Amino acid sequence: MRVGVLTGGGDCPGLNAVMRGVVRKGTQEYGYDFVGFRNGWRGPLTGDTMPLDISAVRGILPRGGTILGSSRTNPFKEADGVRRIKATLAKEEVDALITIGGEDTLGVATRLSGEFGIPCVGVPKTIDNDLSATDYTFGFDTAVGVATEAIDRLHTTAESHMRVLVVEVMGRHAGWIALHSGLAGGANVILIPEQRFDVGQVCGWIDARFKVRYAPIVVIAEGAMPKDGQMVLKDGSTDSFGHVRLSGVGEWLAKEIERRTGKEARTTVLGHTQRGGTPSAFDRWLATRFGLHAIDAVRDGDFGKMVALRGTDIVRVPIEEATAKLKTVDPALYAEAGVFFG
Amino acid sequence: MRVGVLTGGGDCPGLNAVMRGVVRKGTQEYGYDFVGFRNGWRGPLTGDTMPLDISAVRGILPRGGTILGSSRTNPFKEADGVRRIKATLAKEEVDALITIGGEDTLGVATRLSGEFGIPCVGVPKTIDNDLSATDYTFGFDTAVGVATEAIDRLHTTAESHMRVLVVEVMGRHAGWIALHSGLAGGANVILIPEQRFDVGQVCGWIDARFKVRYAPIVVIAEGAMPKDGQMVLKDGSTDSFGHVRLSGVGEWLAKEIERRTGKEARTTVLGHTQRGGTPSAFDRWLATRFGLHAIDAVRDGDFGKMVALRGTDIVRVPIEEATAKLKTVDPALYAEAGVFFG
Amino acid sequence: MRVGVLTGGGDCPGLNAVMRGVVRKGTQEYGYDFVGFRNGWRGPLTGDTMPLDISAVRGILPRGGTILGSSRTNPFKEADGVRRIKATLAKEEVDALITIGGEDTLGVATRLSGEFGIPCVGVPKTIDNDLSATDYTFGFDTAVGVATEAIDRLHTTAESHMRVLVVEVMGRHAGWIALHSGLAGGANVILIPEQRFDVGQVCGWIDARFKVRYAPIVVIAEGAMPKDGQMVLKDGSTDSFGHVRLSGVGEWLAKEIERRTGKEARTTVLGHTQRGGTPSAFDRWLATRFGLHAIDAVRDGDFGKMVALRGTDIVRVPIEEATAKLKTVDPALYAEAGVFFG
Amino acid sequence: MRVGVLTGGGDCPGLNAVMRGVVRKGTQEYGYDFVGFRNGWRGPLTGDTMPLDISAVRGILPRGGTILGSSRTNPFKEADGVRRIKATLAKEEVDALITIGGEDTLGVATRLSGEFGIPCVGVPKTIDNDLSATDYTFGFDTAVGVATEAIDRLHTTAESHMRVLVVEVMGRHAGWIALHSGLAGGANVILIPEQRFDVGQVCGWIDARFKVRYAPIVVIAEGAMPKDGQMVLKDGSTDSFGHVRLSGVGEWLAKEIERRTGKEARTTVLGHTQRGGTPSAFDRWLATRFGLHAIDAVRDGDFGKMVALRGTDIVRVPIEEATAKLKTVDPALYAEAGVFFG
Repeated sequence: MRVGVLTGGGDCPGLNAVMRGVVRKGTQEYGYDFVGFRNGWRGPLTGDTMPLDISAVRGILPRGGTILGSSRTNPFKEADGVRRIKATLAKEEVDALITIGGEDTLGVATRLSGEFGIPCVGVPKTIDNDLSATDYTFGFDTAVGVATEAIDRLHTTAESHMRVLVVEVMGRHAGWIALHSGLAGGANVILIPEQRFDVGQVCGWIDARFKVRYAPIVVIAEGAMPKDGQMVLKDGSTDSFGHVRLSGVGEWLAKEIERRTGKEARTTVLGHTQRGGTPSAFDRWLATRFGLHAIDAVRDGDFGKMVALRGTDIVRVPIEEATAKLKTVDPALYAEAGVFFG
Repeated sequence: MRVGVLTGGGDCPGLNAVMRGVVRKGTQEYGYDFVGFRNGWRGPLTGDTMPLDISAVRGILPRGGTILGSSRTNPFKEADGVRRIKATLAKEEVDALITIGGEDTLGVATRLSGEFGIPCVGVPKTIDNDLSATDYTFGFDTAVGVATEAIDRLHTTAESHMRVLVVEVMGRHAGWIALHSGLAGGANVILIPEQRFDVGQVCGWIDARFKVRYAPIVVIAEGAMPKDGQMVLKDGSTDSFGHVRLSGVGEWLAKEIERRTGKEARTTVLGHTQRGGTPSAFDRWLATRFGLHAIDAVRDGDFGKMVALRGTDIVRVPIEEATAKLKTVDPALYAEAGVFFG
Repeated sequence: MRVGVLTGGGDCPGLNAVMRGVVRKGTQEYGYDFVGFRNGWRGPLTGDTMPLDISAVRGILPRGGTILGSSRTNPFKEADGVRRIKATLAKEEVDALITIGGEDTLGVATRLSGEFGIPCVGVPKTIDNDLSATDYTFGFDTAVGVATEAIDRLHTTAESHMRVLVVEVMGRHAGWIALHSGLAGGANVILIPEQRFDVGQVCGWIDARFKVRYAPIVVIAEGAMPKDGQMVLKDGSTDSFGHVRLSGVGEWLAKEIERRTGKEARTTVLGHTQRGGTPSAFDRWLATRFGLHAIDAVRDGDFGKMVALRGTDIVRVPIEEATAKLKTVDPALYAEAGVFFG
Repeated sequence: MRVGVLTGGGDCPGLNAVMRGVVRKGTQEYGYDFVGFRNGWRGPLTGDTMPLDISAVRGILPRGGTILGSSRTNPFKEADGVRRIKATLAKEEVDALITIGGEDTLGVATRLSGEFGIPCVGVPKTIDNDLSATDYTFGFDTAVGVATEAIDRLHTTAESHMRVLVVEVMGRHAGWIALHSGLAGGANVILIPEQRFDVGQVCGWIDARFKVRYAPIVVIAEGAMPKDGQMVLKDGSTDSFGHVRLSGVGEWLAKEIERRTGKEARTTVLGHTQRGGTPSAFDRWLATRFGLHAIDAVRDGDFGKMVALRGTDIVRVPIEEATAKLKTVDPALYAEAGVFFG
């Protein structure tokens, strides 16, 4: 048995831990061989491989990123994509493919598995935690930890000075990182993409907070949007020097708060620091177990499935279940957090 | 409505976060008053109270320990204990009691609730994660994080020198901290109380590891025990200066390894560092949600219940369900980790 | 003897540690009393005080911010400022004043001490490390640590993806934080206010880095400026929606890099996270020793002086020595770092 | 020009950073070649080498340990040691040797340089910071940081429970780590090897601390010793099972405190966690600069010298200056810390 492995999509702490779990158990317990495909689907498309044995995965558990590299290449958008992948798999004598990735990567695996008979097992990956069918994805806990530590640091500044502090965190379509880090960090306002916010209400919370003698901390997901008519400068417009501007919503909100409340506001944009670096202990544990169970699925010939976390158990679900619907923040959960606003 | 709150048993990061959740929601949404009882069950026994309003819980979210203090006092072992507690509750006009604690504290709450009609709601707390009926308890993730970071640091020493490094972590009756931190840290041997270990096998793993050019890291729970006939020096014996000795199993194992393999071994005993300090983001989130749901149970008059985590949901279960049986590491889960041994 | 204490200017981890050192030694060894003035020079101007005894400083060593609050109030810009300060000091029976602050706060202390006979001892404070006469100021090591950890995290993303990562750190007039964190983090380009940068050269370093298969990390101080003709959007301009824009130089540079190299670039703006939170061990040690030596200077009647670090010793220097000249990065030191560029 | 590099003695975060500085500058600016000798002096003794070019040092800046390995081998204790080293250097065509190590390693370098004409440049290394002629050695700041974080965590436990917490830190002959981490962590007692402690006085401080309602934290260097007649169980004695016992002074002291004060005491032994893992930002900066200046010394032909930190400058001093005398804690500095005892 020879198993191919690839990682696709954005960076996420824990990718290497998955691979280590796959290769250690597959080699030691089942006697399988492995081959790594470089840079997501580009690897099997172009035949770009690297050796993936026990020595290759030694020491990678605590390392962020992916030793295989990644890409957003979609074989269905490439000429002759499926045929080229099949050719590579045949040439490399690969009997099964473990694909570690998010919505796009797993979507491709679903089709390759279902429509074209390529035996795929999926491992879900998204820093944003927005995949259905799994309680958590690895990388999310790390991102929340980085954001929470940043909010912790801002608290002392907020106490000593009378400035509004706005923290922009990841989350284009789902507010999980904002919600969890905002709750864990004791933020006074949390804004998520699932619910358009009213700048006036935000300023009301800010004023309320100042009245208890502390400056407010506002956590905002990068994908959060104000209500209609409270516009934010969009990507693609140009400034007076002709540069195309990507205006972060955090910076925009800080400006709006200054304009409306008369208080100073400062912005922190955590950016890629949330998705780099060593995974948290939780993420290493989850990613390792995903790896161990993914190779079990291969051994069982249980293709077209994805490993998932349910409570403390790792289970298998059809890949399409995970990708059919974005897992967004439940309004009731968001409302629950509202007791800490203001 | 006036609600009493107490924290019992050992220290655990997240206790303050629970109280903050209880008081914020109870005050703001339900208009309740609160009173804090100091030092676990000793508080209601002796009438030792402190104010517990919103200003009292401000800023405590990231702080370890408990602002109420704690103790291991058991009212059923005190003369006239139940009557004295009832008298205090009557005097303080307390309508319900939120008890945050482990097996012992919750066991008392079960009896007070069931046999004596005192309306109690429980919040489970144990650093060791060994309470049934909840997927996780707060504090556990923090402890695993501290232990994992220590193991991470030991790896570089293990690579540069040829020494066996033994790390003793918490876990008297259950090996959850050892298992999770050992997996997350990439330990080469993990020893837990649930399964007596064979020193010869441990030394076999150690020799195997040295053959791949690295020194081994052994994670051992404080309650792990060697097989019969491989004795460990017990608490209560005396050394040649007449001092009573408490010999940690980690130090004992390091000595045994040195004697049997001829390799140098060094011990790290993390001790109380695992249960102190700021809670991890996960533990703050879990503890906060436990607090929010505990006060909801009070509002619903749902006494004799404990809040618990199931997947990503907070549910209520009878308190006795949690305390009836210790949650130990499943042998299958321990076996799963074995692929990384040696 | 009764001693007043105030903290002025921007937030800086270690302020509380200084106060604790002052009060512990002053009370226990010299039998002095203390009074805290709130919010920088505004405290003695308006008579706003708080008690500052041993119990007030208990537990504040690891806490960022300042329990006294701070402000940028300058008594020389207030009507009748000096007279009002003198009146407060007389009313409070203060014999000496310990002023903890940066260039502005210490500048006021210099004049009050020299021209108006108010007995002041200074403690230097600047996150930017740009005060002359002291090797380091507390808070700087903490800021460098926060920035370095962020850069560490970005490395794995840089390795996995082919994006330029720009990190904007503090430093309006001096590049110490950028230089130290850039060196410690292994940045590929470091840009400081002391030397105008050439965007073309920056892009050259970026291209060179890509050739060794890794994406580059650019650390830029907020006060760094491109050469003439390579303009950056200034504060005060307005965007197409009429909002006043504050364009960070980091974001501007990322856009320029994208435009010139055709590579994607992403920005992280650490903002106030660099000046909040618990001080590093080094900063706590330095701040504590500054406090111990400041009260010694009071005891010696050595006014108009400031404590300073020279090697491993704490010495006293005239306050004006520290404020006369900004300590900027030596061109030779910046050139030394250049070996790592590209 | 071809330069050999070796690392000797115990593990220390920053060793890799030194090498990276040496190789980057030596290659890029001076066009030198490098060869790494494995495992300290054993490398040149046995001819065990590894390539050391720019690609070999890529990515090693944040990594603890040493990619060259280390040992405590002393060529003057090996038969024919000097001749064998000379033979290896001749065979490898090495023109100069950069030796990174502590007292022992540098002592060998001094003799090889002075008596046998082997051109050596030294880089001082000791986690304990006990080398004369340099303000600090790299690795020390990291160790102090690890110990301080552990003490921070213990504080919350100390506040919640009434237990004495003893932390044993590194420092066999000098108390720098204990002094700095004890001061930074707010310990109530600090015990160092330079001054024998009186257990009765320690218990006095402990009782005093309990009177202000908090439990005490005692930081003790592993080499600290009680006064005569207050003996500690020595290495080499045997317990009742015939095992040779190494009794840590921390555990011994905890037992003594329990016996004398009647309070419970718990011990944390940080062990090798203090010398492993990623170096702090300060240590990376210091180690990098040591590397850059060591290769400059080679270029200048300035052999028999060691780089050293003086204030913020890197200077060169004769190697024997550093090794002639252990740098111990000045009694005045220790007395200064005493204001926080009790």
